[in-house]
Amino acid sequence: MHQPLLDDAKEDTDNAEYAGFKEDAADMKNVQLKDQCRQCGNKLCSISTLRKKLPCIKWIPKYGLRELQCDAIAGFTVGLTVIPQGLAYSKLAGLPPQYGLYSAFMGSFIYCFLGTSKDITLGPTAIMSLMTATFATSPIPQDPTYAIILSLVCGVVQLVMGTLNLGILVNFISYPVINAFTSAAAVTISFGQVKNILGLKNIPREFGPMVYETFAHIGETRIWDTIMGLCSLVILFLLKKLRTIDWKDEPGAEIKLSQKIARKVLWLIGTGANAVIVIAAAGIVAVLHSQNITGHLSLTGHLKEGLPPFKVPSFSVTNGTETYTAGDIFSGIGMGFFIVPVLGLVETIAIGKAFARRNNYVIDASQELIAIGAANIIGSFVSSYPVTGSFSRTAVNAQSGVRTPANGIFTGAIILLALAVLTPLFYYIPNAALGAVIISAVVQMVDFAIVKSLWKTNKMDLVPHLFTFVTSLAIGIEYGILIGIGVSLLILLYPVARPPLKTLVRPGILLVQPHQGMLFPAAEYISESIVHKATKGGRPRSVVLDFQHIVKIDYSAVQSLKQLFAEMKRKGQCVVLVHVQPQVMFDLHQAEIPFLIIRSTVDEACEDILAQADGHEMILPQDISDEEHPALA
Amino acid sequence: MHQPLLDDAKEDTDNAEYAGFKEDAADMKNVQLKDQCRQCGNKLCSISTLRKKLPCIKWIPKYGLRELQCDAIAGFTVGLTVIPQGLAYSKLAGLPPQYGLYSAFMGSFIYCFLGTSKDITLGPTAIMSLMTATFATSPIPQDPTYAIILSLVCGVVQLVMGTLNLGILVNFISYPVINAFTSAAAVTISFGQVKNILGLKNIPREFGPMVYETFAHIGETRIWDTIMGLCSLVILFLLKKLRTIDWKDEPGAEIKLSQKIARKVLWLIGTGANAVIVIAAAGIVAVLHSQNITGHLSLTGHLKEGLPPFKVPSFSVTNGTETYTAGDIFSGIGMGFFIVPVLGLVETIAIGKAFARRNNYVIDASQELIAIGAANIIGSFVSSYPVTGSFSRTAVNAQSGVRTPANGIFTGAIILLALAVLTPLFYYIPNAALGAVIISAVVQMVDFAIVKSLWKTNKMDLVPHLFTFVTSLAIGIEYGILIGIGVSLLILLYPVARPPLKTLVRPGILLVQPHQGMLFPAAEYISESIVHKATKGGRPRSVVLDFQHIVKIDYSAVQSLKQLFAEMKRKGQCVVLVHVQPQVMFDLHQAEIPFLIIRSTVDEACEDILAQADGHEMILPQDISDEEHPALA
Repeated sequence: MHQPLLDDAKEDTDNAEYAGFKEDAADMKNVQLKDQCRQCGNKLCSISTLRKKLPCIKWIPKYGLRELQCDAIAGFTVGLTVIPQGLAYSKLAGLPPQYGLYSAFMGSFIYCFLGTSKDITLGPTAIMSLMTATFATSPIPQDPTYAIILSLVCGVVQLVMGTLNLGILVNFISYPVINAFTSAAAVTISFGQVKNILGLKNIPREFGPMVYETFAHIGETRIWDTIMGLCSLVILFLLKKLRTIDWKDEPGAEIKLSQKIARKVLWLIGTGANAVIVIAAAGIVAVLHSQNITGHLSLTGHLKEGLPPFKVPSFSVTNGTETYTAGDIFSGIGMGFFIVPVLGLVETIAIGKAFARRNNYVIDASQELIAIGAANIIGSFVSSYPVTGSFSRTAVNAQSGVRTPANGIFTGAIILLALAVLTPLFYYIPNAALGAVIISAVVQMVDFAIVKSLWKTNKMDLVPHLFTFVTSLAIGIEYGILIGIGVSLLILLYPVARPPLKTLVRPGILLVQPHQGMLFPAAEYISESIVHKATKGGRPRSVVLDFQHIVKIDYSAVQSLKQLFAEMKRKGQCVVLVHVQPQVMFDLHQAEIPFLIIRSTVDEACEDILAQADGHEMILPQDISDEEHPALA
Repeated sequence: MHQPLLDDAKEDTDNAEYAGFKEDAADMKNVQLKDQCRQCGNKLCSISTLRKKLPCIKWIPKYGLRELQCDAIAGFTVGLTVIPQGLAYSKLAGLPPQYGLYSAFMGSFIYCFLGTSKDITLGPTAIMSLMTATFATSPIPQDPTYAIILSLVCGVVQLVMGTLNLGILVNFISYPVINAFTSAAAVTISFGQVKNILGLKNIPREFGPMVYETFAHIGETRIWDTIMGLCSLVILFLLKKLRTIDWKDEPGAEIKLSQKIARKVLWLIGTGANAVIVIAAAGIVAVLHSQNITGHLSLTGHLKEGLPPFKVPSFSVTNGTETYTAGDIFSGIGMGFFIVPVLGLVETIAIGKAFARRNNYVIDASQELIAIGAANIIGSFVSSYPVTGSFSRTAVNAQSGVRTPANGIFTGAIILLALAVLTPLFYYIPNAALGAVIISAVVQMVDFAIVKSLWKTNKMDLVPHLFTFVTSLAIGIEYGILIGIGVSLLILLYPVARPPLKTLVRPGILLVQPHQGMLFPAAEYISESIVHKATKGGRPRSVVLDFQHIVKIDYSAVQSLKQLFAEMKRKGQCVVLVHVQPQVMFDLHQAEIPFLIIRSTVDEACEDILAQADGHEMILPQDISDEEHPALA
């Protein structure tokens, strides 16, 4: 409903003529808003709205064989990446490994129809998995009920936010905060995998205790796990290098077909490095097992074969004697219902914008919310936990030459195939190899270079960045990002709450001109400061309040004006408003403020105050103001 | 550290001459900040700082017999109110009744030394009790460990916030949101007492299920509880009326001493209504018990006699087989560590401001934070749950003629006395009577009149108000207030994120002038809009970006300028900045933005662009800008 309205308002305001533009933008906007309201009815069911809400109708008509070929290759390549990542991330989320695959295919299918970026690929991500473990850990070990409900509600919240055009929310999370958050998440997640590499057990999830316990238990390191983990890690980094080799061809030199094929194969190995490592590790283990050499490595183990059932998510779970009801689940997840949807949005938008810029298209944050929301809702029917856009797989997708979002169909198909036939083979995958997959995926998210850059360009931005990073590690990344957002908004809003007040003292009169809109963060401060100044130093003075820069007042401002007038009245002085703009005038009259006096100029106000001080009665305000301000007529 | 710095900045900016005030307030502030930094060292340990941090040194030297008398009367009266309320609120918090009394005395003692308001009295309140039940319910029924830890950490958070001068945070919670929150809390709490009045068992705490279950179990109503509850409620309301009787004396008529005494007694009964009801109800029950008529009423029952031990709060709790560690407690309380301290501050400030205004003094939000913080920290050593300023008791305090915060000593003494000798008598107090005490205390917090008032003065303010109220009831008051704050900040910040852009198209050139500071919420929007406009309708145009109104840029703005320059460069066009202010100029140069071109006027920029379009090379920006802008030298 909101969407066309807000979008158009933006459009029209922008087109305002540079030269003829007046100060009262708010007033102007008002007129435009009314204009759009009239057009709203037609707009809602227009073709452009449909194209916006169902972006696939843009590319489906133009879809050809070339697109199919490119999308198929990209889709398969992403599929090869998501299978090992899905198995690894589901462990991070505290769930059995098949849930990572359950979470991977529905997002791919849905995004294909609702998404606005050809590059983004939805599915389980490291941060969403960590958030699932943080907010939706069931009291019953390995039970997915909480995670599935989180996915459902998270989807509903995102869908509602998208429909209300709340994609704008991402603009209020500044880049230094997002950057610190992803760095902290990457540090937490990577260090969390050290236990898998070393084969340690019973390590807690919070960063502080995790580091402590990991070092405390270092003596229990299992040598085979460590060898497997470190080898996987090193080979993984080397293989990924293959993808980005610069062959340094002489300009104009001819490249042989065999060379071309060899390069393509190396690139494919680099891109499918995760799959290569996992298959190789599992193969080695399988061979050892066939030789009856077992028990040295901790393995993925048995996982449920076949596709997940399509069913309405269960709202309660029973563990023998104890039953956890919907109420328990909802109060258990708590703040997760707010934080997870927003983090999902932030992750997708951060990734989407990066690739949209590179490939020269624009993504629509609100439509992305609708796409992720739908994916999470429908995903919850196939036992998915919350998904969002994955950085590493989106990069793979883009590099594989994807043309349209249709690639998601191929990615989804590969995952379904794997679930249907490959699950018995997953038994042999060592946890240490999966740990290496996670570390190599998240370690690129760590970015300390920004600190230097912030120090150089804007030191004030370092404050929210460092706050976010330190609190994320100290008390958890879910709190860190909230604190970071709070700190950056506080820095942004400080001038709004404590606007400069220009003052000038004349005999018996104090002139005050607030600099900005008189809105709730500043309302009390302004009226208290005025009383303080007017009564400072002996005999109180009357106040002339210049409303020249005030284009908007809210309820709090009205209340504090009332208090200001009443308090000055008690002290035997009056307050006179001057230069009141029409809209503000209207609001003030609506509020029926006692003792309200309005004059048009400062001089007029001063004359009246001095006349009153000489014993004359001041003319009641309402008598003249209506005539002076035709806007009220 | 921050305090003197910020306070003085405010002072000095305010004194800026009205006439000679220039637009660049930010620049001005910068100079002032440096000035204050120099003075900072001296300020920190000055007497005025000490007076600010230890407000009791203001009133102690002037303390006399008259003050003692008044404070003693007020203190005793508040004590009479807090004892029944404490017993009732501790049940609301899910704790045994003595914990309400444990929570009541330390706050009174501490506030006496650190508080800035003579009227405020700290102790258990309905909202804090509900929050304690929400966030700090121990898995072991009636166990106070979680609540005590919440008090400790909540106190530390408040103390830190106060030291960082974050009292300003309350300014960002608008009155419509606070009002809707208190109304919703009052509705939730009152309805929650219906079960005590009707004698129902096993009613859940969340509003929706609570209403449903209360009606579902209405058939199990216990008649004696209901009679006791309703009678208490009616008598309580009638007694409280005694306090506010207007005796309508003829002006100048003489009032007899007997009349005076009678009026005073009636006022005292009205003020101590809670105590009167509870004592009467307990008396009746005791008499019935002595006649062996028992079992009809649900009673408070046995409570632990004597004072609470003074000890370090325990960070773990064991229930036979299961042990809950510090980690369990902290992750159990979770968001409560952030929400409860802020709500505590909001409640105290809302109350404090109301009485400060009435009694003509000023309270300092940051110092209040320090006072509540200290009370919560030290309170946790005597088994207190989180406390804050109580509306009903603060009102009683003011009406009883309190003179200084010293009244807290008397209140605290009364409570200690009650704990020491009265606990056996509390056995007979019926739960229904305590329910009536709670209902009569919170029902006055419900305020629906504001809706009409908001509708008349500012309809936009209705949005956060209704959002807060509805979500508070639908999903819990702790989320409702967060959503309300979010909505009101979004309304406040929308113009910051989508500032009007004035544009003017000349042949081959687009002129753009952003209206406000280029900060993170708007940064991407501005650069994307410019690219969109510059490339709209066929041939792309170069851009002249007028920075006249830009007094501040942050890291996000620099990043999106970089992208803008790079993108326009790719399209074969350039971007020229004009009217760049010295501070912004400095930041831009620090950021080393590629393709940065700066000119002093629009005409100069247009000439250069057109010359370049004709094939001339444009002069590199850095060559001339330093000369043009002496601020950089």
